[in-house]
Amino acid sequence: MSKIDDLMEEVKEFRDERNWEKYHTPKNLALSISVEAAELLELFQWKEDSLKNIEKERLEEEMADIMIYLLALSEISGVDLKKSVKEKMEKNKERYPPEEKHFD
Amino acid sequence: MSKIDDLMEEVKEFRDERNWEKYHTPKNLALSISVEAAELLELFQWKEDSLKNIEKERLEEEMADIMIYLLALSEISGVDLKKSVKEKMEKNKERYPPEEKHFD
Amino acid sequence: MSKIDDLMEEVKEFRDERNWEKYHTPKNLALSISVEAAELLELFQWKEDSLKNIEKERLEEEMADIMIYLLALSEISGVDLKKSVKEKMEKNKERYPPEEKHFD
Amino acid sequence: MSKIDDLMEEVKEFRDERNWEKYHTPKNLALSISVEAAELLELFQWKEDSLKNIEKERLEEEMADIMIYLLALSEISGVDLKKSVKEKMEKNKERYPPEEKHFD
Repeated sequence: MSKIDDLMEEVKEFRDERNWEKYHTPKNLALSISVEAAELLELFQWKEDSLKNIEKERLEEEMADIMIYLLALSEISGVDLKKSVKEKMEKNKERYPPEEKHFD
Repeated sequence: MSKIDDLMEEVKEFRDERNWEKYHTPKNLALSISVEAAELLELFQWKEDSLKNIEKERLEEEMADIMIYLLALSEISGVDLKKSVKEKMEKNKERYPPEEKHFD
Repeated sequence: MSKIDDLMEEVKEFRDERNWEKYHTPKNLALSISVEAAELLELFQWKEDSLKNIEKERLEEEMADIMIYLLALSEISGVDLKKSVKEKMEKNKERYPPEEKHFD
Repeated sequence: MSKIDDLMEEVKEFRDERNWEKYHTPKNLALSISVEAAELLELFQWKEDSLKNIEKERLEEEMADIMIYLLALSEISGVDLKKSVKEKMEKNKERYPPEEKHFD
């Protein structure tokens, strides 16, 4: 199985082969993540909260689009996505201890 | 270095220890990805398109939040994030051959 | 010239003639505003920050879509959009006095 | 009751008194509409689809924020918001005739 850094490298190569560095600026990539996140959300618009009526292929594609731009932003910003997730999970664990009730 | 599936497992455990399965529905997770994507975008609001004035720690945290919800959605939907990225990259390569000009 | 309430009434009639009250729930409308806002944002993706390369008709349509859902949410929630804007403008005036520098 | 153009004028004056024309570019305003739309959406995050648990004042404020940026974009782009809504409603009426079933 491949690693996050390998995927990031693949996204970088794709960009470089097309000379898209000038488009892949931080603000443009953050904007693109928002646009793709809304396309994912649109799959659920006017629908029950269920996967029943969601086409799997479209779900995969929208999730992939978000991930690809996240990897591209990670590449240009030097953010280590795996490390950032692990650190945020630690914060979340402290903030929401398992034994407590946080909702309801 | 860890794999995407290990991160997904960690997110799943965090959710299960808090009995948050009932909140982690597909529509709610898609909604949460959009909310977090907008928080990332907000870092660039009214700013030059540069990383110069962006606090690295906040960038890492917002990117991690998106990734965490993407992993959670991946877990409940059975979408293989790595495979989906690889397949979408193949589509992108066909759609945008490197030798052609796609913008300007 | 027409008033905001007349536009809201028109949106309400459109919805009622199609029996769409069951779809026009608060969360669904908030979700739809986000989806439409991202479609507006997409017009500017990978572009210079200018109206030069934006098709006026698409801009009008995306802005109208956001406004229509805002009116629909206003209708079901009893939020007076005009009054809310005026009150928020008052808050903004206090928060950002004209004589001070707030950026740079 | 006030008209949309009066509200737009008020937003314009607020901006001009602070010399914020340079920040109120089309792309920045579209970005800000998305950011505010997500703040509205966040009110419904992890919640039932109901107004019951939503603080009315926060709802008003988030809806006002979207409207204010929509008015600001309308002002700089020359988009007539009222006319655009009326035209889009006409299109919607043709696209979704009342006698037909469009969902289920």
